[in-house]
Amino acid sequence: MSGLREFCGIFGIYGDERAAEKTYLGLYALQHRGQESAGIAASNGRDISLHRGTGLVWSIFSKPDIMPRLNGMSAIGHNRYSTTGASGLLNAQPIFIRYKGKQIAAAHNGNIVNALDLRKKLEDQGSIFQTTSDSEIILHLIARSREDSIEETIMESLTQLEGAYCFVFLTPTKLIAARDPHGFRPLCIGGKGAAHVIASESCALDIIGAEYVRTIEPGEMVIINDGKITSRMLPKTAKQSSCVFEYIYFSRPDSIIFNEKVDKIRRKLGKQLAEEAPCDADIVIAVPDSANTAALGYAHRSNIRFEIGLIRNHYVGRTFIVPHQKERDLDVRVKFNPVTGVLKGKRVVLVEDSIVRGTTLKQLVRLVRSAGAKEIHVRVSSPPIISPCFYGIDISNREQLIASSSSIEEIRDHIEADSLAYLSVKGMLSVVPKGNLQCAACFTENYPTDIPVEFKKEQFDSHQS
Amino acid sequence: MSGLREFCGIFGIYGDERAAEKTYLGLYALQHRGQESAGIAASNGRDISLHRGTGLVWSIFSKPDIMPRLNGMSAIGHNRYSTTGASGLLNAQPIFIRYKGKQIAAAHNGNIVNALDLRKKLEDQGSIFQTTSDSEIILHLIARSREDSIEETIMESLTQLEGAYCFVFLTPTKLIAARDPHGFRPLCIGGKGAAHVIASESCALDIIGAEYVRTIEPGEMVIINDGKITSRMLPKTAKQSSCVFEYIYFSRPDSIIFNEKVDKIRRKLGKQLAEEAPCDADIVIAVPDSANTAALGYAHRSNIRFEIGLIRNHYVGRTFIVPHQKERDLDVRVKFNPVTGVLKGKRVVLVEDSIVRGTTLKQLVRLVRSAGAKEIHVRVSSPPIISPCFYGIDISNREQLIASSSSIEEIRDHIEADSLAYLSVKGMLSVVPKGNLQCAACFTENYPTDIPVEFKKEQFDSHQS
Amino acid sequence: MSGLREFCGIFGIYGDERAAEKTYLGLYALQHRGQESAGIAASNGRDISLHRGTGLVWSIFSKPDIMPRLNGMSAIGHNRYSTTGASGLLNAQPIFIRYKGKQIAAAHNGNIVNALDLRKKLEDQGSIFQTTSDSEIILHLIARSREDSIEETIMESLTQLEGAYCFVFLTPTKLIAARDPHGFRPLCIGGKGAAHVIASESCALDIIGAEYVRTIEPGEMVIINDGKITSRMLPKTAKQSSCVFEYIYFSRPDSIIFNEKVDKIRRKLGKQLAEEAPCDADIVIAVPDSANTAALGYAHRSNIRFEIGLIRNHYVGRTFIVPHQKERDLDVRVKFNPVTGVLKGKRVVLVEDSIVRGTTLKQLVRLVRSAGAKEIHVRVSSPPIISPCFYGIDISNREQLIASSSSIEEIRDHIEADSLAYLSVKGMLSVVPKGNLQCAACFTENYPTDIPVEFKKEQFDSHQS
Amino acid sequence: MSGLREFCGIFGIYGDERAAEKTYLGLYALQHRGQESAGIAASNGRDISLHRGTGLVWSIFSKPDIMPRLNGMSAIGHNRYSTTGASGLLNAQPIFIRYKGKQIAAAHNGNIVNALDLRKKLEDQGSIFQTTSDSEIILHLIARSREDSIEETIMESLTQLEGAYCFVFLTPTKLIAARDPHGFRPLCIGGKGAAHVIASESCALDIIGAEYVRTIEPGEMVIINDGKITSRMLPKTAKQSSCVFEYIYFSRPDSIIFNEKVDKIRRKLGKQLAEEAPCDADIVIAVPDSANTAALGYAHRSNIRFEIGLIRNHYVGRTFIVPHQKERDLDVRVKFNPVTGVLKGKRVVLVEDSIVRGTTLKQLVRLVRSAGAKEIHVRVSSPPIISPCFYGIDISNREQLIASSSSIEEIRDHIEADSLAYLSVKGMLSVVPKGNLQCAACFTENYPTDIPVEFKKEQFDSHQS
Repeated sequence: MSGLREFCGIFGIYGDERAAEKTYLGLYALQHRGQESAGIAASNGRDISLHRGTGLVWSIFSKPDIMPRLNGMSAIGHNRYSTTGASGLLNAQPIFIRYKGKQIAAAHNGNIVNALDLRKKLEDQGSIFQTTSDSEIILHLIARSREDSIEETIMESLTQLEGAYCFVFLTPTKLIAARDPHGFRPLCIGGKGAAHVIASESCALDIIGAEYVRTIEPGEMVIINDGKITSRMLPKTAKQSSCVFEYIYFSRPDSIIFNEKVDKIRRKLGKQLAEEAPCDADIVIAVPDSANTAALGYAHRSNIRFEIGLIRNHYVGRTFIVPHQKERDLDVRVKFNPVTGVLKGKRVVLVEDSIVRGTTLKQLVRLVRSAGAKEIHVRVSSPPIISPCFYGIDISNREQLIASSSSIEEIRDHIEADSLAYLSVKGMLSVVPKGNLQCAACFTENYPTDIPVEFKKEQFDSHQS
Repeated sequence: MSGLREFCGIFGIYGDERAAEKTYLGLYALQHRGQESAGIAASNGRDISLHRGTGLVWSIFSKPDIMPRLNGMSAIGHNRYSTTGASGLLNAQPIFIRYKGKQIAAAHNGNIVNALDLRKKLEDQGSIFQTTSDSEIILHLIARSREDSIEETIMESLTQLEGAYCFVFLTPTKLIAARDPHGFRPLCIGGKGAAHVIASESCALDIIGAEYVRTIEPGEMVIINDGKITSRMLPKTAKQSSCVFEYIYFSRPDSIIFNEKVDKIRRKLGKQLAEEAPCDADIVIAVPDSANTAALGYAHRSNIRFEIGLIRNHYVGRTFIVPHQKERDLDVRVKFNPVTGVLKGKRVVLVEDSIVRGTTLKQLVRLVRSAGAKEIHVRVSSPPIISPCFYGIDISNREQLIASSSSIEEIRDHIEADSLAYLSVKGMLSVVPKGNLQCAACFTENYPTDIPVEFKKEQFDSHQS
Repeated sequence: MSGLREFCGIFGIYGDERAAEKTYLGLYALQHRGQESAGIAASNGRDISLHRGTGLVWSIFSKPDIMPRLNGMSAIGHNRYSTTGASGLLNAQPIFIRYKGKQIAAAHNGNIVNALDLRKKLEDQGSIFQTTSDSEIILHLIARSREDSIEETIMESLTQLEGAYCFVFLTPTKLIAARDPHGFRPLCIGGKGAAHVIASESCALDIIGAEYVRTIEPGEMVIINDGKITSRMLPKTAKQSSCVFEYIYFSRPDSIIFNEKVDKIRRKLGKQLAEEAPCDADIVIAVPDSANTAALGYAHRSNIRFEIGLIRNHYVGRTFIVPHQKERDLDVRVKFNPVTGVLKGKRVVLVEDSIVRGTTLKQLVRLVRSAGAKEIHVRVSSPPIISPCFYGIDISNREQLIASSSSIEEIRDHIEADSLAYLSVKGMLSVVPKGNLQCAACFTENYPTDIPVEFKKEQFDSHQS
Repeated sequence: MSGLREFCGIFGIYGDERAAEKTYLGLYALQHRGQESAGIAASNGRDISLHRGTGLVWSIFSKPDIMPRLNGMSAIGHNRYSTTGASGLLNAQPIFIRYKGKQIAAAHNGNIVNALDLRKKLEDQGSIFQTTSDSEIILHLIARSREDSIEETIMESLTQLEGAYCFVFLTPTKLIAARDPHGFRPLCIGGKGAAHVIASESCALDIIGAEYVRTIEPGEMVIINDGKITSRMLPKTAKQSSCVFEYIYFSRPDSIIFNEKVDKIRRKLGKQLAEEAPCDADIVIAVPDSANTAALGYAHRSNIRFEIGLIRNHYVGRTFIVPHQKERDLDVRVKFNPVTGVLKGKRVVLVEDSIVRGTTLKQLVRLVRSAGAKEIHVRVSSPPIISPCFYGIDISNREQLIASSSSIEEIRDHIEADSLAYLSVKGMLSVVPKGNLQCAACFTENYPTDIPVEFKKEQFDSHQS
């Protein structure tokens, strides 16, 4: 599905001779979680070095003088989706500060819902903010803390935050990771020989050949120091509410998140969809690549042949511009090619993982039809999205959500499909692990935290990270 | 399959208000035929303007001042694979010259086998070459021709060339396209309203919404002028020998080439492979993306479940470097992720379209095995490659071809597969259209032209385009 | 003289339709005061926009989209000498912050001697510093102030600073300028129609066609608002001690500083030098361009012919590198060309404005001698520099000052001159205006402020601005 | 004087371990002869490597990987003034070709007056031109020559050229230099140990510490090979006509050209001017820097005090833009600062070396007057320019020459001077060496060669080099 963006991916490693290179590979594996900027902070035991840039990971670190500067045996990294231009670099992470003669770097995935309150309070006390990111708040809290140890300082600072966060912190001698008490976003621990690794998804462990150990628990803070890993729990407790959308769309299918394989869940969603919304058709095709697994699940359960009817063009670049694009459906033709030989004369089930605005899907239906499909039955492997996310996903505006104001029949009509069916909320929760411990607020409006009244779009936009 | 590179894609359009923009889109659709440099020449009826650069199409034309300069109602474009650095830009096409007060631009896909002879002859007569590309030869021949009309001039020049070529030429008022008498490489004609379009593959017609009309015949020269399209045949005749590899690997599955759908042939290759080399297994997976269609064909014919067991990472960039990559199999881990949930405990058929060196395939087999596959049976939807190509594909060196010196059992042992089978030459030719009119020299050593004795690797390398 | 660097030039304008363009020209005229980075902040009455970069002024603002963004009727600008690389941009000014819903930009010329104390105090209170520049301190003081009005806030903040400073501040509606109570560095007021202008030197007024009005007094704060200019005095008083080196070397000869013409003073220094250290010679030549005026004064008073014996090469760029420069005296040959026809067989007086290390002068003497000069008599239009500057000039290290450890005869021997004479301190103070109100500490070690004991080189280096 | 541009400077060295670095320094010293592009070709005895770029010399070669590639013991270099944009790089020299298995690079200073004829003839024979520069012609002639040895080949090719040229050629094993039979432009020989050096002016010898040996004679070809230098004369003879403007303005004052010191001649021009056009005034000032020496000569002969009344700003960059420059005289204020203290109330002689359009001089007179000068008497150390140059100087258009259509009194009125006088042609020729062997056609219209009738401005423009 196009239109939804995860805000960040984070990575950390401690005890590896080539810590920054491992972090580089980890960020590369997490590239799908943020493509606008990235950065690595590394520690040699005394000092922290830092490089950040805008663009894809491979381009940011491709100049020959960059990686050698990031020396040392521990490092953290961050991929970020952010707004354009100068602010892109300004808000890139990890953030690094010197304070009271100490150094710390931090990388954040999530969204602090009481960010505006905290920022106002800090500014009233004379703090100067350099970025528009809510991630900077934690560093001001750390700089102002009266606690002695960095563990206590971070613990004290984290308890002031509300909302969704996974953090990795790097000091000259320690790597610290923490996950908010609700456990909104994923964060896991891996090991590679004597080295300890932290990553948003396990695919970042795989690429460096590290073993998956376990998920970091909601509310857990993990401290890695002197080769040892210890664990503390944040005092604050809350009902777990992990993001169900990580299974549906964001995480890579080859990852383990929340201690479960994404591919397996995604296939189950497709199968459940086939149970709930069967279809009399000749072939099943997916909107590539994100709906591939669900489509396979749908095809297997419904015993309809799976085919590759749309091919995704992977050469499209960030600044690809189609001048004067008055051509009908040009933007979708640039990204997808229909395979006429597969589609011609066929009754097609088109499986998509989710629908935000429906704009692209409408063009895709047209494209498939123009290739000769006789009927097009859209099946969506998640329920209708009716409400924004305040916990780190870019579904910021109810007005953009077609399902918040249109009936399913209206959406079907809009996307010009012959039929349309969504997976039910109940069906979805029945196949995701620990269904009642998942946050499904974007489908149900049942938010697990208070949402500040003043959390308007503009503020929301500029304060996510 | 990684390891084989097509050398070029070409495009031309005549009679469109936005000729350069259409060419830009056409090149974008042909990006798979060459990713190192690209260029567009456009004519406003009096003068030809030109822009070339290195990199992907979208990046070369992304600066705002470039496209407006390429104004006019006709244009040609070129994608090129080429060697590195300065020579990349030097050899970028279209090539443009002014000669005797006239202007002409040319774009070439193919390989001139008598290039060295012609070049030596021209240099002996005082011609100065600016590039190391064999494509420059045609322009010297044109500049030296005593013919009056550009049609006669080009005709006279083409008859001196031996080997593989598709050309598009642009003069201030005409668009001319030609295909060598053997018809090695594909070139087709399309139409969009009053505009005429020429493209290496039909996918470049689709993206601009043009209709496919027909293939340009071997030995045919097409002249577009004043809105009219006329056709002439080169005097020289030869048995058609179109490249069978275009079906196997190079062309996009959604393209029509040599008047036939690629996807359809590629699926037939997979089915034929299933007939010839069946396998007792649980699942069929492809080496994505190029073997997807053949794998589907294999799965359907053999009635084994198709699964997505390897995911391709599309964020990898041209200058992606993995510093100190002593990690075992790192380069394949960077490009492919195995889906453990799919592979674990399974007997897997791994379908690949072709094998050049076997290096990547060996790593892929390891990767699939490390994800828990119980057995791995490799099936290749083309015969063993035993001999170089002299007609425009980068299979330059017999020593690099594992099948030229190893038995199938040795290759199986090398790639660590449980079994290995190739498609037979006979089987292949039975499913490609007009099988006996295809060039299959890389599988058979049966070359349709004389190959100059002195065609050594070095010269070969630097003279292809 | 090479080897001494002024740290900054500042400029401000209020009430001009093209405020940023005027600032651009002003910075260009002040380029000699800092060549490493520059920036402009402009206000449109509601918001402040900012652009900073490294390099010369013309290159920083040459991209077409920059100047249009800096719109509004008031602006400030800054030229900076700074250290290399990333820190160059990091420390570029103006510095801009948002605090408590307000905006302010500041540009600073000088050096805060109690910077380390203040910074430590602020960090203890939880402030995070983004730069290594002492100029950031004032913004933290402003952000923490409890005063209501910006005038009171700045006043309160300035009173905490010790040392040398000239500031221009820009708020959305006001332009405020201030000079420290000692008046170390120059700052003047100009007018152009309804607009008010602030500049380090009057040459920045000339270039925009503004009239010189007056110098800003030591300890004066000037507030420009609603077209009116008002003035307040800092409570703290101190004996005026303006930098005599501004006359000797730093300021441009066509400028007025401290209410006096630089050219006139510089010529008087040359005449006084001729009185104190006459010479029996054929010609007087200058080390161009900085000693030209003093050399003319020397020539006129001593009635020896002035000649151009050394020509300065103005094409030398910032990154001019002479690889493997083992060639003797190559670096001086790159910058200066001796005119053999002028020098051959002559007894030459070579006038220099000052000597820091003597390295370049030694090479110049050799160069002049290699061009055939019979005798070379060096005359220096300032006294020996024996002590570092803590007020904004890059004479940071006593060890680098040849006169701090060598006698004049030893220096003469080192630079291989036939004779050497300096201007006396008494002679110098007799010709500069208000001689006893000048800071001549680098010649006398008589510092007008306390210097913190811990003011070591390293700290000093990284905290100047 | 601003407004006149020399077209090129050339340099060559043979037998130096660091040939390319010496060439780099030589080009840097010759930067005044061309600031738009530069290049170096170096030979290691077998192959020639080449780097060219646009901009100043130091910037073109500043990337660390460039100089190491230019290895070998011989090299040639070229500075060029050229038109803007893409053509800048296209026309950059040295030009390098491979032909008949051989390699040659060439760098040219001058202007071939029969370039159009030769080019047409070559194009008729099928030659393709890559540049719009007349310098490419020689390489086509060389490539088409039937002579065996490179010396004969070059000799044969040169005899076909009419007009002004100095060439340095580099083959893998030889360095060859040649000067046209008229000897329009300067070219000299130097030596540094075992190495031989060729340069447009001797200042390029000085910077590398080489000794001046002699000028290359008109019509002489010098061949350096195996450490030996030999000389041949072109068969064609012509009366010597060296460019007198090299003395007046172009060459650096510290150079020797045509075997004579520039500084000495320039001073004599000033003295002669004082004899011919005395003035009752208080001070003599120069338009810096080009008229400095003539002004000193004027001041000494007339016994009026020389002063520095205008200071040139050397920070101005190539792309310095003054947006919306409606400010009166802004462009001259950006380049020159008047020194008020020197000028106020004075009767001033302002010495300029030459006048082309008079635009800048008019603004300078205003600037000097605005600084308080009571009277301004302009004295020009060359005669009125009335006619274009066809031999390598950018005086291309009679309409631009104010003296071609205005009387001296009209010019005086235009530039708003109190009086104006030029040096006489007779006076000029009396002080330049071998006066009657100088080309003074721009002052006399007495051209030493035939000028093709069709030598219109447009063609002229695009064919100079």
